Amino acid sequence: MKRSIRIAAMLQELSGRPSVLFNLQHFCDIYEISKATVSEDISLAALALSESDQGEIVTIPGPAGGVKFVPTISEEKAKEVQVRFCERLNDSGRILGGGFLYTSDIMYDVAFVRDLARIFVTKFKSLEANYVATVETKGIPLASMVAYMLNLPLVIIRREPKFSEGSTVSINYFSGPDQRVQKMSIAKRAVTFGSKAIVIDDFMRGGGSIKGIWEILEEFNIEAVATGLAIVSSTPTKKKIDSYLHLVTLNDVDDSSKTIDVLPNFSIF
Amino acid sequence: MKRSIRIAAMLQELSGRPSVLFNLQHFCDIYEISKATVSEDISLAALALSESDQGEIVTIPGPAGGVKFVPTISEEKAKEVQVRFCERLNDSGRILGGGFLYTSDIMYDVAFVRDLARIFVTKFKSLEANYVATVETKGIPLASMVAYMLNLPLVIIRREPKFSEGSTVSINYFSGPDQRVQKMSIAKRAVTFGSKAIVIDDFMRGGGSIKGIWEILEEFNIEAVATGLAIVSSTPTKKKIDSYLHLVTLNDVDDSSKTIDVLPNFSIF
Repeated sequence: MKRSIRIAAMLQELSGRPSVLFNLQHFCDIYEISKATVSEDISLAALALSESDQGEIVTIPGPAGGVKFVPTISEEKAKEVQVRFCERLNDSGRILGGGFLYTSDIMYDVAFVRDLARIFVTKFKSLEANYVATVETKGIPLASMVAYMLNLPLVIIRREPKFSEGSTVSINYFSGPDQRVQKMSIAKRAVTFGSKAIVIDDFMRGGGSIKGIWEILEEFNIEAVATGLAIVSSTPTKKKIDSYLHLVTLNDVDDSSKTIDVLPNFSIF
Repeated sequence: MKRSIRIAAMLQELSGRPSVLFNLQHFCDIYEISKATVSEDISLAALALSESDQGEIVTIPGPAGGVKFVPTISEEKAKEVQVRFCERLNDSGRILGGGFLYTSDIMYDVAFVRDLARIFVTKFKSLEANYVATVETKGIPLASMVAYMLNLPLVIIRREPKFSEGSTVSINYFSGPDQRVQKMSIAKRAVTFGSKAIVIDDFMRGGGSIKGIWEILEEFNIEAVATGLAIVSSTPTKKKIDSYLHLVTLNDVDDSSKTIDVLPNFSIF
């Protein structure tokens, strides 16, 4: 097989299973080449990734080591994505009244969501988390993409316990401008005690829902090691949680003048 | 730049945006090479894909044409995925009683879900659909992956209308063994009249929910051109819908003997 074809094929296999460690021997066996040749090929594949800003190859040395693909994003490209996100949000047709914006079309545009996910992956890749957790529904495609890219199981917290989830643990929490009591439920089989989770959601205003996620994870002694949010409203300024990373800040939605003030959050870099 | 690096970089860009048509001029500009050279490189990239069973490159001729990556799967590999799916399901620890199985860990294992999605992509890629639709919650990661791979917007039908969805259309339908009345709601902004949708869900027993999805789409004159289901129960034999494609058949879950009978559906090939 031509070397150029082999390198492209190897990189496709790696990039189809992000954050999965491949032993070099795997490629020796498939392509009938030496480990030294595999190493050289991987170096060229890594160059191809950095040239096209598609991510990076991480090498873990030692007998239990190998190589893995992580779909990180450069600061320059990430900023472009954040600016594009603001441009898409800044459309008066999205205004629903009461300061709410229609965002489902963006949060369900999975190719775009993948770019958002790459920013979280770049920031959270070294946390050694065991899960990516979200609460249904609008953040699921984003959380699902982050889970895929970090090779972690996705945990979807439900609003109501379902029979198909088996035994569940539920909590009540306060959320929304009117501090309404809401419920969250997690399947006992979905998680193990004493692990770590990355929390992902599409939007945060006061932080009630995110605090709810942290609390239900605490029931299993699971630490929320990071929280990534696509959009955060600048009001109320006092949030129920103190630590999170967000991509854009929604400063204002003016129902009468039909204007939206949304800015990229470049302070994450 | 070395040719081998360029080919791998090109393929990464294509495969990061599945089903998006790239004009050849795009690559001429990036790499400062002629169209003839781009064409040759793309041919080698296509070989790399077929060697590693990672998908295919589709070429659309003409001035508005170009190339796109589609993550199709070979029949051989698809069958392996279906067999693996059955092996994972065939675990007595999953039995919840009442013939129900716990499957969330599989449906939320996004790397595995991606393999399931590739089978649907292979079957549905030529339907020229406008959307991928599902109903919350368990099928969302699967539907999200299919939408990403076909470069289509995802439409998530909700159980209850939400304020953040703007104006919605709701229907009532019958579902479940007890034929309970349930509700579904779709955002008017999420869809346009007279289009086509691919329906994806994780599980079907009698077909009530899927029929509900078809009906709510019909409210917008949207045709369900295909329905893809991960698991279909063999009972009841009479389903409420007549046309669907499923990956595995769940024949029996015996609560007392703790046995599960689940088989891959190879008739899709």
